[in-house]
Amino acid sequence: MPAKPRNAFYAQSGGVTAVINASACGVLETARAHRGKIGKVYAGRDGIIGGLTEDLIDTSKESARSIAALRHTPGGAFGSARYKLKKIDESTAQYERLIEVFRAHDIGYFFYNGGNDSADTAWKISQISEKLDYPLICVGVPKTIDNDLAVTDCSPGFGSVAKYVATSMREAIYDVRSMYRTSTRVFVLEVMGRHAGWITAACGLAADEAGDPPQVLLFPEVPLDEEKLFARVKAAVERDGFCAIGCSEGLHRADGKFVAETGLKDAFGHAQLGGVAPTIANMISEKLGYKYHWANADYLQRSARHIASKVDLEQAYKLGVAAVKLAIAGKNAVMPVIERVSDKPYKWKIGVASLKDAANTEKKMPRDFITTDGFGITEKCRRYLAPLIQGEAPPPYKNGLPDYTILKNVAVPKKLSTTFKL
Amino acid sequence: MPAKPRNAFYAQSGGVTAVINASACGVLETARAHRGKIGKVYAGRDGIIGGLTEDLIDTSKESARSIAALRHTPGGAFGSARYKLKKIDESTAQYERLIEVFRAHDIGYFFYNGGNDSADTAWKISQISEKLDYPLICVGVPKTIDNDLAVTDCSPGFGSVAKYVATSMREAIYDVRSMYRTSTRVFVLEVMGRHAGWITAACGLAADEAGDPPQVLLFPEVPLDEEKLFARVKAAVERDGFCAIGCSEGLHRADGKFVAETGLKDAFGHAQLGGVAPTIANMISEKLGYKYHWANADYLQRSARHIASKVDLEQAYKLGVAAVKLAIAGKNAVMPVIERVSDKPYKWKIGVASLKDAANTEKKMPRDFITTDGFGITEKCRRYLAPLIQGEAPPPYKNGLPDYTILKNVAVPKKLSTTFKL
Repeated sequence: MPAKPRNAFYAQSGGVTAVINASACGVLETARAHRGKIGKVYAGRDGIIGGLTEDLIDTSKESARSIAALRHTPGGAFGSARYKLKKIDESTAQYERLIEVFRAHDIGYFFYNGGNDSADTAWKISQISEKLDYPLICVGVPKTIDNDLAVTDCSPGFGSVAKYVATSMREAIYDVRSMYRTSTRVFVLEVMGRHAGWITAACGLAADEAGDPPQVLLFPEVPLDEEKLFARVKAAVERDGFCAIGCSEGLHRADGKFVAETGLKDAFGHAQLGGVAPTIANMISEKLGYKYHWANADYLQRSARHIASKVDLEQAYKLGVAAVKLAIAGKNAVMPVIERVSDKPYKWKIGVASLKDAANTEKKMPRDFITTDGFGITEKCRRYLAPLIQGEAPPPYKNGLPDYTILKNVAVPKKLSTTFKL
Repeated sequence: MPAKPRNAFYAQSGGVTAVINASACGVLETARAHRGKIGKVYAGRDGIIGGLTEDLIDTSKESARSIAALRHTPGGAFGSARYKLKKIDESTAQYERLIEVFRAHDIGYFFYNGGNDSADTAWKISQISEKLDYPLICVGVPKTIDNDLAVTDCSPGFGSVAKYVATSMREAIYDVRSMYRTSTRVFVLEVMGRHAGWITAACGLAADEAGDPPQVLLFPEVPLDEEKLFARVKAAVERDGFCAIGCSEGLHRADGKFVAETGLKDAFGHAQLGGVAPTIANMISEKLGYKYHWANADYLQRSARHIASKVDLEQAYKLGVAAVKLAIAGKNAVMPVIERVSDKPYKWKIGVASLKDAANTEKKMPRDFITTDGFGITEKCRRYLAPLIQGEAPPPYKNGLPDYTILKNVAVPKKLSTTFKL
């Protein structure tokens, strides 16, 4: 009689995206297609926290149809967490606890769906399991809207945010262009990406060619120079009648201070937490007198499954598939990644990186992706970004709204008498 | 030989929408189909300003294909304006100037695409033309995202904003629900509608049924009661783990002051212009200590043609068609409107209102559309709103982005030697 296949643990980590559930779908569907190799897939409720507290979700209780619906559902279907494990040399307790839970549920495969930190965690867990002589295959599944994972050409989640911000910027420009003569002259859209300007850069895709609006992009990589900004905005308004600005939430000044730290105090002396968009808009208005409007897309940009990129969706799904295939092939401490084969036509394939490499490197915007003046994207950047927003993959609609799914998320009965304090 | 048909003047007015160009398309296509009755259609560049300054656009220079593309293009294709004509008893000069321009270009039909103010203007122009013995047929085409036109069951532009905010709220809820355990507990989405809460109400459609999130709506019709709000948010977080809030930009306190007037001063003593979303979010955090995020959709909501409501789009187009048919039938000082025949299944037809009636009445949210506690929508409200967001009508996409059109907007040669100072 062949050995009973070991179970798998899947967890979502960090900020969720429009397509992280598509990766989950890829993992679950592929595991189900290989029942001889992988037993049940347990998901961590609220990510790694579910692993630590033995709060596991039995995904086998979900119908094939529900699992398929994950492809078109934003957010994290099992719950995700901002929860960073301690460094191994500070405390091994968390790692040992995870192995204890894995052992109790005969988990032989660990799939961790996240960014740099998660790759780091997964890599450490693979080391600890070896040390504890617990056989475990650890495979990362890349995910981050920030697109700052160095080992992959692009990160699932980013392409859909890019499509959302480029579309929104284009639409807002059609609005502002209609009315600048008697109304708004300056429009600022604030986008995510605190340390890397990839999302800000994607606002630039709203322009069909260089010179079209948005006329100004404000990257976290380029310290704010107010006088240069004012001159640039004034020139744009005088030439085009209006100025559209895409701005990173992480924009900072030369002294390193975030622009969003307004320095304002309320009546009780508390610091006022302002957005960077109103701050920039207000600053321009004070100096140049233009009427302004601003938007802050916030979570809307990373949850907008209704306008997800088809390329992004497919990559997210196929990375989930590839992760399981790697695990079945016995590859440990690895992560499937996207390798770009060509820009035009866009071709890509799945490659494999080591978790160790994924953990220790961060991808910033290359300087030659930003124009010399610091306010725009270069053709090289456009060539990189353009394929990532290709194709539409609308969700089904019901009663006029996207018909997203909520899973049952049935708990796996606990086997341990021990508990763990987070 | 039959008399040469007289020309028409079409102008867009006030804030643009995702579907005002669909009304333009209805006007232009229908006029083209009745060349024996209507000559050329001239559009005002930047709305009524183009009429006053004799800056007319010759729409006959646009291909049928370009005109058809208006159906899927947001913003105002000919330019719109926030420009209110003076009261007749204060100055008749503007009205007389318009008639002078109309006379020079043999304009016999005036189509004015706007809200309450525009209906008022069109009505006054119809009176003046009569007084000046200048034969002119004035027909309004309703438009406003605020949905506050009393003579029509709903206003074109509103349904698409409603679909946008309901979709965005639903998507953000999927995001927040995934992560509240270690991250955001309170999410606030700020929406337009300074005086009427229709758009705020539409956020409530994100809930499939009463009790689902968003748990709190803050209407401009209901003065903010901070203690009640805090209690409500706390209860929601304790029950559901998080609280999603839809908030009108026009939310005010019992003393009438807008919440967005933060009362904060910057280093130079200038008043800080804050959004209402960050103000509410910050207030809740100060009191209850919850981590928050907030979004301000701003122009994104009214330009989001990519997620327009099909019902809204069709109504916008057909009201443009109906306006021309009314004009051809010799009906003066009227406006085609939407009459609801039934809620379920939703049936509607075109009716006719007088411009005078349209001008003088404003539609607020009925009190029985808001729950007794002031924080939600009633079933009656839901029954009214639900049909308006039905159906999808995606634009064509090119290179991953909506393929919107920009018209040539060729100027009609001026005939007058006089100018007009705005």
